[in-house]
Amino acid sequence: MKILKGTGVSAGIAMGAVRFLSGAEHSEHRVIDNVDSEIGRLHDAMDAAVSQLDALYRKTAGELGEDKAELFRSHSLMLKDPDFTDQIESIIRKHVNAEAAVQEVGERFASVFAKMDNAYMKERASDVKDVSQRVIGILEGTGNADMTFGEEPLIIAAENLVPSQTAQLDRNSVMGFVTSQGSTNSHTAILARTMGLPAIIGVGDALNSDVEGHVLAIDGFTGEVVIDPDPDTMKRYELKNKQYESHIQMLKSLKGKKTETRAGQTVRLFANIGRPSDMDAVMNNDAEGIGLFRSEFLYLESEDFPSEETQFKAYREVAERMQQKQVVIRTLDIGADKQADYFGLKAEENPALGYRAIRICLTEPEIFKVQLRAILRASAYGNVAIMLPMITSVQEVLDAKAIVEEVKTELDDKHIDFNHDMQVGIMIETPASVIMAEELAAEVDFFSIGTNDLTQYTLACDRQNANLTRFADPHSPAVLRMISMAAEAAHHHDIWCGICGELGADPSLTQTFLNIGIDELSVSPSSILPLRKAILEA
Amino acid sequence: MKILKGTGVSAGIAMGAVRFLSGAEHSEHRVIDNVDSEIGRLHDAMDAAVSQLDALYRKTAGELGEDKAELFRSHSLMLKDPDFTDQIESIIRKHVNAEAAVQEVGERFASVFAKMDNAYMKERASDVKDVSQRVIGILEGTGNADMTFGEEPLIIAAENLVPSQTAQLDRNSVMGFVTSQGSTNSHTAILARTMGLPAIIGVGDALNSDVEGHVLAIDGFTGEVVIDPDPDTMKRYELKNKQYESHIQMLKSLKGKKTETRAGQTVRLFANIGRPSDMDAVMNNDAEGIGLFRSEFLYLESEDFPSEETQFKAYREVAERMQQKQVVIRTLDIGADKQADYFGLKAEENPALGYRAIRICLTEPEIFKVQLRAILRASAYGNVAIMLPMITSVQEVLDAKAIVEEVKTELDDKHIDFNHDMQVGIMIETPASVIMAEELAAEVDFFSIGTNDLTQYTLACDRQNANLTRFADPHSPAVLRMISMAAEAAHHHDIWCGICGELGADPSLTQTFLNIGIDELSVSPSSILPLRKAILEA
Repeated sequence: MKILKGTGVSAGIAMGAVRFLSGAEHSEHRVIDNVDSEIGRLHDAMDAAVSQLDALYRKTAGELGEDKAELFRSHSLMLKDPDFTDQIESIIRKHVNAEAAVQEVGERFASVFAKMDNAYMKERASDVKDVSQRVIGILEGTGNADMTFGEEPLIIAAENLVPSQTAQLDRNSVMGFVTSQGSTNSHTAILARTMGLPAIIGVGDALNSDVEGHVLAIDGFTGEVVIDPDPDTMKRYELKNKQYESHIQMLKSLKGKKTETRAGQTVRLFANIGRPSDMDAVMNNDAEGIGLFRSEFLYLESEDFPSEETQFKAYREVAERMQQKQVVIRTLDIGADKQADYFGLKAEENPALGYRAIRICLTEPEIFKVQLRAILRASAYGNVAIMLPMITSVQEVLDAKAIVEEVKTELDDKHIDFNHDMQVGIMIETPASVIMAEELAAEVDFFSIGTNDLTQYTLACDRQNANLTRFADPHSPAVLRMISMAAEAAHHHDIWCGICGELGADPSLTQTFLNIGIDELSVSPSSILPLRKAILEA
Repeated sequence: MKILKGTGVSAGIAMGAVRFLSGAEHSEHRVIDNVDSEIGRLHDAMDAAVSQLDALYRKTAGELGEDKAELFRSHSLMLKDPDFTDQIESIIRKHVNAEAAVQEVGERFASVFAKMDNAYMKERASDVKDVSQRVIGILEGTGNADMTFGEEPLIIAAENLVPSQTAQLDRNSVMGFVTSQGSTNSHTAILARTMGLPAIIGVGDALNSDVEGHVLAIDGFTGEVVIDPDPDTMKRYELKNKQYESHIQMLKSLKGKKTETRAGQTVRLFANIGRPSDMDAVMNNDAEGIGLFRSEFLYLESEDFPSEETQFKAYREVAERMQQKQVVIRTLDIGADKQADYFGLKAEENPALGYRAIRICLTEPEIFKVQLRAILRASAYGNVAIMLPMITSVQEVLDAKAIVEEVKTELDDKHIDFNHDMQVGIMIETPASVIMAEELAAEVDFFSIGTNDLTQYTLACDRQNANLTRFADPHSPAVLRMISMAAEAAHHHDIWCGICGELGADPSLTQTFLNIGIDELSVSPSSILPLRKAILEA
């Protein structure tokens, strides 16, 4: 028995024989004579790759939903990018074989993406590699590795799994996977969670082809990987799996139940979402509303300002799916660690204390108005509210509300339908907004406390700085006191006060929040049912 | 008449005929035959330069004080740096004339300094240029430009003045100076203030040798430069000068007076200092104590951790000169925008929210203890207190006090004298410290509110980010309310509460601070008498 440790990226327990998938070999450079026939080979292979991707799109859309399948459409688009093909051809013209040319250009593109200052674009680097590998596989005649392995339950191990490999894993036989490399935010990790497959990444070089033929037990909660587990370990894993299954069943039984303490105190249990495709998870976990719809995805995944129409469609989709349940849309929170090149933001010494969020919107109202029009139009299709981030003063709220009124007048002039009474609330995420909470509460319809930023500014500790763990107490009494101050001010002014930061999902604080009288907790969809359980038992 | 605009770096008004000093010409590259004799010329010139610098040191020490003369010692040291000489010689060995070789190496060294991530080191770039120019002047036989100009009152104009030129200005004839280039924090600007010469920098190319022979009126307050002022302008300047002179006289008359409102409320009026050489200004402006002795200079102006002895001497000097008046020494506040390479701090995404100040001291107590020993030893020579920066929790205070106690025990064991009752206070500069003020007040002897950082964190606005002026209200009601909260908590616990940030010197807030009951205001020495006036009249 041997125990390795990685990062669990998808919950669950699995045990079974392991199958190690060898990684793509580096394509050999060969001198070729006939350039034209080599370019012909290239195009045949690329056409074949596009056909494979179309088939994969249809299969994945059917099994996992269209949004997960979207990946393969974007892979197709890469293959159709003339710049990609031109660069490959120009290498072939130097009498280099197509495999090596695809590999070189693929790596070139991947390294450009990898250097981009945007997590979404960075992730595209692995997509480019994935696509290139597919074309090389076809050129080399190995095609695309077969991802079905017969009936026997299997654990897949690999150096790395590209998203297209993950999507093709046969869920009848594959119980979970482990990789020696990989990143937490990769498409592969996201796919694993969607597919409900326990998965562990980043185990390191100790996980290699030597495991082939052995038995593996993997724990997606802790990241533990056991090679050839002894009988005690197997028993432990079986027990944990059973407990997990019954926990899942218990949580499922909470769907449809009212979120209420024994003493009858109710809390609205809402979901945080990042894009319309998160709505399946919202529905599956029985969220009572959307407490934070981050609108950044529209900006981060776009190469220019997203149009009013694009935005409207996204907001309307969520509003409609929630029917008359509340949907709180946060206006754009670009800046700091969320960068989009076309905004033309300057590099800053301290981006977290910089030109971001509402500051951009108030300084460049034309950007803001496009979003406001889209949100207001969506308000005709559901119960939509707007939430302003990074507020530090009453003046900012008055300025933002004036712009909202301008947009309302424009829409009225054009006889475009919208909810004239749409709620306007603010994030409480700066210390100033807590101190000014009484004055702010008089101007808005609700507060939603962003505990991550509030903690960061209150303790003057960058939440992403690994050197500060000793000083960045996530349960800081200062922050808890500020949450209480904000809620008190809200209730003085008869408005509701929620929490939409990570702290809201922490069950060890649920009783504290109940005592403070928090009206709403907005958490990731997967935290909703566990939190409902905590509240029911409080 | 023509009006130009620059940046006033030294207060005062001056009028007179202008003398334009031409800048150093770029040294021509010549091919030389006899390398050995050229190296001989170099060494003769460098020896002559060292003699000039020694003479300048003695003259400046006599007229402006030893600390201002220190500059010329450091220039001498540069000339004695073997690396500097070696590099020049190696260029001469390629048959290049000494002038061009000195210029090239001077620029090479200057560009290294200019790229350093430390304002003090950056400033050394102009020192290297100054020294190189001196050697080149001697080599070219122009020697060092004569800085005496007869009896007639003169305004000096130049592209740039190096510190050694400024120090040599004849104060019998020179009334002030203007330069087309220059930086606010340069030695030249500091020297001008010490010499009491009105000075304006950064006027731009419109200020050039064409002004020679004209009359100039300069306003060191506003940065205004008038060429050939008309009679009305001359009258206006004479009036402003008279008002300034009488204002200075009035302020002088406040020396020795008690700082007390008409109603009898007293405030202790202390000075902020950065180094022992600021003590002259402290004495001249009748400070009642030192409310903030920034100890960073010891670290920033050093190439390795300053020894206990070096630190002790600096602290003792200030303690002794203040006799029994209080001297509050802030423990090291390195990090964020104050970097010293030898600390080996990693680059951070948001340095203002990073590993800095007390966080370094608690994580690396061996660094902290050296400073604490030096401060405790100095406490035997005056009324010394210690102040901890960037506090966010009670635990940090307890941890820091435990280290102080350790050091005290060590000193006792060695029978080294110190004040066993030395006060220990904290900066209130994070929002958390305000929120936790009641608990913190129970643990310390005083609060001193750092309004600059407190504003920065409360409003989540980097104080050095020029894009945020709209959002970074220096009179933010949130910050004023926090000042009041901190003072209230301090008084509940019978400890004093001061302000040592820029806001403390703002006369438009003096009445507010009196109402809050602030016990101490610590400001730059030049703000003390104006602030005393405001308090006397309140």
